[in-house]
Amino acid sequence: MSKVILGMSVSLDGIAGGGADADGMALHEAILGWVFPLRSWRAEQGQEGGEDSVDSRVWAADFERVGPQIVGRAMFDWGYPYWGENPPFHAPVFVVTHRGQERIEKQGGTSYTFVTGGIEAAVEQARAVADGKDVLLPGGVSVARQGLAAGLVDEVVLHVTPLLAGRGLPLFGDGRAELRCTDAIRGEGAVHLRYEVC
Amino acid sequence: MSKVILGMSVSLDGIAGGGADADGMALHEAILGWVFPLRSWRAEQGQEGGEDSVDSRVWAADFERVGPQIVGRAMFDWGYPYWGENPPFHAPVFVVTHRGQERIEKQGGTSYTFVTGGIEAAVEQARAVADGKDVLLPGGVSVARQGLAAGLVDEVVLHVTPLLAGRGLPLFGDGRAELRCTDAIRGEGAVHLRYEVC
Repeated sequence: MSKVILGMSVSLDGIAGGGADADGMALHEAILGWVFPLRSWRAEQGQEGGEDSVDSRVWAADFERVGPQIVGRAMFDWGYPYWGENPPFHAPVFVVTHRGQERIEKQGGTSYTFVTGGIEAAVEQARAVADGKDVLLPGGVSVARQGLAAGLVDEVVLHVTPLLAGRGLPLFGDGRAELRCTDAIRGEGAVHLRYEVC
Repeated sequence: MSKVILGMSVSLDGIAGGGADADGMALHEAILGWVFPLRSWRAEQGQEGGEDSVDSRVWAADFERVGPQIVGRAMFDWGYPYWGENPPFHAPVFVVTHRGQERIEKQGGTSYTFVTGGIEAAVEQARAVADGKDVLLPGGVSVARQGLAAGLVDEVVLHVTPLLAGRGLPLFGDGRAELRCTDAIRGEGAVHLRYEVC
């Protein structure tokens, strides 16, 4: 069965994002910005060039494993205009939301399906179309915590950026879990830590 | 000049310790317990045996670099009875405290000096007797944050244990810093991340 992988970027003090104000956007960029120069990330956006770095190869290997993705409503609302007509997912995306709406089809294999049955329903629907690939849960924080709390996450992959943010939204809440580390790779812009949830 | 190294164990969600109750002690053991089986750690306690593991070699290499240590009052009060007559430091220890008292001499090279002038004075006194070694700041959380806030920390070494604690005391507070990752090693019981403070 497809694994569910929680894969997110965090600062060394565990912050996954900021608010929607200028400071929050600067924080987002500091935490997530390590991907922008990567050749593999740029290819997903339909852009040429970029660095063929350790980070780029880690990102490419992770993306290769992944089919459907599950995102939270806030992340969807934030990202939708940026993701454009040929979004970087190239796979079905399931949006966990309280507000149901019609499925949206985009180019390049991306579709947005709005799931009102919670994280469990989203995982079920994503697995049904995974076709041998794994399911990625790239955020935001709320959906990540829901997935962990429901025991639905098989692997946690953290891209840790070399920053003490000192403010913002911590990825992890009051959920407890035992993990097993299976990989630790130092890239140019982040350390990539991979864990199995026990 | 001797570097000041903040070196602590944390859970993957950034928790450095718990309270003094049973749950807090269990949490302490879950976060710090990776050291107990190590041959190098046991040797510092005057114990034989233990595992010659990746973790043990990382611990030994770190300890080799370090001379004086700086600890907080709470950590001292907590650890003093356990550390015994031949404490595992084998070097001068400076205790940051509001309550001055006479210096205590122990066997095996350990002494406890009580510094009431704050973290700056403790670093100055530790450097004065470092004799080419680095100065280790092993905790607790309050002293670690004071050292970071005062810009006195040159390196941050985190031993990250595979655990989402979900409660307890976060190592990092609202301090901001840019770092540079210089090493990431996956051991048996922890991932060892080394950063320079920019």
